Amino acid sequence: MITRMSQLFVRTLREDPADAEVPSHRWLVRAGYIRRVAPGIYSWLPLGLRVYHKVEQIVREEMDAIGAQEVRFPGLLPREPYEASNRWTEYGDNLFRLVDRKGADMLLGPTHEEMFTLMVKDLCNSYKDLPLFLYQIQIKYRDEARPRAGLLRGREFVMKDSYSFDMDQAGLDASYQAHRGAYIKIFDRLGFDYVIVNAHSGAMGGSASEEFLAIASNGEDTFVVSPGGFAANVEAVQRRPAAEQDPTDVPAAKVHDTPDSPTIDTLVAQANALFPREDRPWQAHDTLKNVVFKVTHPDGRTEALAVGLPGDREVDVKRLESAVSPAVAEPFTDEDFQARPKLVKGYMGPLALGLGQLADGQTPPPDAVRYLVDPAVVPGTRWLTGADEFGKHVADLVVGRDFTPDGYLDVAEIRDGDLAPDGSGPLSLARGIEMGHIFQLGTKYAEALGLKVLDANGKLQTVTMGSYGIGVSRAVAAVAEGTCDEKGLCWPRAVAPYDVEVMSAGKGDQIADTAERIAAELAERGVCVLLDDRKASPGVKFADAELLGMPTSVVVGRLLADGKVEIRDRKSGSARQVLVGDAVAEVLAEIGR
Amino acid sequence: MITRMSQLFVRTLREDPADAEVPSHRWLVRAGYIRRVAPGIYSWLPLGLRVYHKVEQIVREEMDAIGAQEVRFPGLLPREPYEASNRWTEYGDNLFRLVDRKGADMLLGPTHEEMFTLMVKDLCNSYKDLPLFLYQIQIKYRDEARPRAGLLRGREFVMKDSYSFDMDQAGLDASYQAHRGAYIKIFDRLGFDYVIVNAHSGAMGGSASEEFLAIASNGEDTFVVSPGGFAANVEAVQRRPAAEQDPTDVPAAKVHDTPDSPTIDTLVAQANALFPREDRPWQAHDTLKNVVFKVTHPDGRTEALAVGLPGDREVDVKRLESAVSPAVAEPFTDEDFQARPKLVKGYMGPLALGLGQLADGQTPPPDAVRYLVDPAVVPGTRWLTGADEFGKHVADLVVGRDFTPDGYLDVAEIRDGDLAPDGSGPLSLARGIEMGHIFQLGTKYAEALGLKVLDANGKLQTVTMGSYGIGVSRAVAAVAEGTCDEKGLCWPRAVAPYDVEVMSAGKGDQIADTAERIAAELAERGVCVLLDDRKASPGVKFADAELLGMPTSVVVGRLLADGKVEIRDRKSGSARQVLVGDAVAEVLAEIGR
Repeated sequence: MITRMSQLFVRTLREDPADAEVPSHRWLVRAGYIRRVAPGIYSWLPLGLRVYHKVEQIVREEMDAIGAQEVRFPGLLPREPYEASNRWTEYGDNLFRLVDRKGADMLLGPTHEEMFTLMVKDLCNSYKDLPLFLYQIQIKYRDEARPRAGLLRGREFVMKDSYSFDMDQAGLDASYQAHRGAYIKIFDRLGFDYVIVNAHSGAMGGSASEEFLAIASNGEDTFVVSPGGFAANVEAVQRRPAAEQDPTDVPAAKVHDTPDSPTIDTLVAQANALFPREDRPWQAHDTLKNVVFKVTHPDGRTEALAVGLPGDREVDVKRLESAVSPAVAEPFTDEDFQARPKLVKGYMGPLALGLGQLADGQTPPPDAVRYLVDPAVVPGTRWLTGADEFGKHVADLVVGRDFTPDGYLDVAEIRDGDLAPDGSGPLSLARGIEMGHIFQLGTKYAEALGLKVLDANGKLQTVTMGSYGIGVSRAVAAVAEGTCDEKGLCWPRAVAPYDVEVMSAGKGDQIADTAERIAAELAERGVCVLLDDRKASPGVKFADAELLGMPTSVVVGRLLADGKVEIRDRKSGSARQVLVGDAVAEVLAEIGR
Repeated sequence: MITRMSQLFVRTLREDPADAEVPSHRWLVRAGYIRRVAPGIYSWLPLGLRVYHKVEQIVREEMDAIGAQEVRFPGLLPREPYEASNRWTEYGDNLFRLVDRKGADMLLGPTHEEMFTLMVKDLCNSYKDLPLFLYQIQIKYRDEARPRAGLLRGREFVMKDSYSFDMDQAGLDASYQAHRGAYIKIFDRLGFDYVIVNAHSGAMGGSASEEFLAIASNGEDTFVVSPGGFAANVEAVQRRPAAEQDPTDVPAAKVHDTPDSPTIDTLVAQANALFPREDRPWQAHDTLKNVVFKVTHPDGRTEALAVGLPGDREVDVKRLESAVSPAVAEPFTDEDFQARPKLVKGYMGPLALGLGQLADGQTPPPDAVRYLVDPAVVPGTRWLTGADEFGKHVADLVVGRDFTPDGYLDVAEIRDGDLAPDGSGPLSLARGIEMGHIFQLGTKYAEALGLKVLDANGKLQTVTMGSYGIGVSRAVAAVAEGTCDEKGLCWPRAVAPYDVEVMSAGKGDQIADTAERIAAELAERGVCVLLDDRKASPGVKFADAELLGMPTSVVVGRLLADGKVEIRDRKSGSARQVLVGDAVAEVLAEIGR
């Protein structure tokens, strides 16, 4: 098959799009693969759609290979199933909702757990029908607060989502492993570097959960790995509590004037000047910083939450988001502080925080603030922290002796060198793009929607589910992101829109005819060829070839006078001259046909 | 490839679904091809999706073959382009509208003319870029007032829509013919009977327009054909005005008491009794019936419209809808009549209707009613009609002499035997399902959205467009509708989910093993096999095989004792016995491999 550039519906751009934050976005737009229609919503042009179809087909083949059966649910869905699972509410503003002409509430499917569960409930009634793997490749809609990076975080996108249905945990484990294996094959075939990490399962519920991340410095996700093999999304890292300390020798807590200490650094400097510590200088990690958030639950209920953590760390917003999900946390505003005069901004301490020791059924006072602390803040540790009065701090406040938090919350930023929770050594941080997510849902949806089948003894038993997703449209961008360079796109062969570009680079019929002939011979052998037959200068064609990114190019140009053409490799940039008569065979060998 | 019935995600139903109005809907649900999620919204089960994918692929191949390039637009779209074309308003309640989290108005694309037009405007700027054919296969959303018949009229459905872009009418004509040719190939391959008819282009604007209708007694569309080759959707039939008459000898109009004449029949009987006509008895077609409607325009403006037509015909609601579209017409209610006391219900006549002869810029009186008449109501014709007084009619009212309508409107029902407007003979009526629609849009969208390119002289020129649609998901139902019988589905080979079903019909390892072996040998030769390996009775398997509708079945059963198996043809119901050793070869020959 030959496509002629002179007829291809494409226009390459010399300028970056204004909203392009990451290379894949920049190049996919500039090379004419996609176009923006609205924030987070894109159209596919012919070149982009060819890549998309190839990715889709790889995903489909590997799902079929593990015996998964393809179905397709609508994008437009009734409210009721999502009401039953509580996600109509939990999804909050991320859900596109609408009302039809008869007044019925509807939504655009952000994910289809409910629909799969109901479908299996409709069709299956016996353990003999299980295990069962179902999947679909379908458009999803999420009204992201911050759509960004082109296809990487869109509001309309394509996912492959599959679900496994089993009678018990052992079955679920096997189904999970089957999907894990299929995902490894898919990502290996797509041809980019990836890592498999433990994942927090967020709003989805369930237990075992892993993510497949494309390694990318621009990725939205941060992950950690240890020398001993620990790998996790930072959102899923739960640091081990520090060792408890014996506070016997710690002096009694004492309040000090710290008149000019708006930051941790100034506080430490003042402390060392005004009330030096007996054993060593005060350091940032001796201070206990308290940050307070307003947490809004999906049902609209709000509560105040204070997080206490060592002063040398910040709260990681994404880890916090993940920890409180499906609720949403926002920093306290000046107004929020005014409403709670006990909280002295900049000088908050543990003594003004916490719900206290409540007996069963007792409710905390209305102005009480839930107080959760970092795993470093264990019993016996001593802290320099706010004294709940403007310009004052308290030193040697000891956990367990002087105050008792309401619990732990590990939402501090993870740092290079932090220890892996499994004892496998210090963590290194890197970034990635979430490409796949597999997790054991368990019975959450089956219970909410009543999916039960008869077991071997004729008793009804709730089905156990696994959920497995791949961002198909996102994968196009992730492959682009992982393979592009400073000249443009650089596709792996498995997903390139065309196997080969053949280019006539120079004037005269002989050059054009030779390019046509080589293209025709390759096409006859089943190669998909992009023929640059435009009346344009070699310079323009070279630049576009690099921008468009076919893995192999054949340049028919001045060398033809010597009976030669050039075969170029997009990735390495290398070029070699071959005799015209050998060109087709050389290309076939190079592309592995 | 082999799929085992024991593992296939399917459940056949013995009962018809409650809402099934047409055979295709009934069988697709009962055979486990689709499931209803909400009114007009369906999920695809594995068998249905296989048929869908085959239809999609046939459409794609034929579009590619005429050089059309595939793109894909989002389903979720911003309001602005549809505002520019006025369709945000014109679509009325048929459009699914929603508001995103930032308050932006959005819609679910009912069709994508605007998006294609803008995309070409973005990428093309010269006549050298044309002609251009673009297409997509994408989900569409329309909030139909009366979703019905399963996939035949849904609210979420898949269309292939393509557009051609040309510099002039000659180019558009050629593009139109190219698409027409591709559509003929597509519908020939799909394997059902169809007819190509002239079509009213409805809300789409434009001129030349044809529909491809699957011939089906349950079809929503009515079409006519004549012996001389005229073929049109009834909505597109414009009867020729009758010959004008010389009214010289017609007596002066005279009002008669017709005390008990609520219907045309009673009126005719009374007229013949009370004031007989001089030449022959009064007949129903001598009466002029006036029907008045409230027409609501997309912008909310309403007007009264009276239609005058011979008393032996009724207004065809669909022809009226099509004629007034995008406005909507509803019959006058009692309230509407009360608001216009000049209109005497049951006794309305031309003298109370019509806007009168208005000079330029003059507006009609506020209670005036626009009056359009049937093409039979031409100057010189004489009529028996209402006298605008209860219990009175007027005879011998002559068009042109006694009253002048505001114009013609041909919305009377078309009847078998009516003459074709092109003089090609009497019309016959039949019904069909609209499967494809091709039409010359012209410059409507290009003008609304500013799509111009430079012509050969360097002048900007508005592009001329054609629009070509196929209902891809509807085609699945149309094929089912056109081929099913009283036992179930009966797929043509081109779209059957599996080429062959192999069935073990009887107990014992030998039967099961033989079925397995035949299935395996067929699969090795590239045949897609559905193997019914269930532990079920032959009767259940036979019934399911007929319900599911694979074109060819191999039955391995009792005949195996004689070394034979049976090959069954689903369509003819014929069965023949062949030696086990010949079975694979016989099947391959039968299915044309």
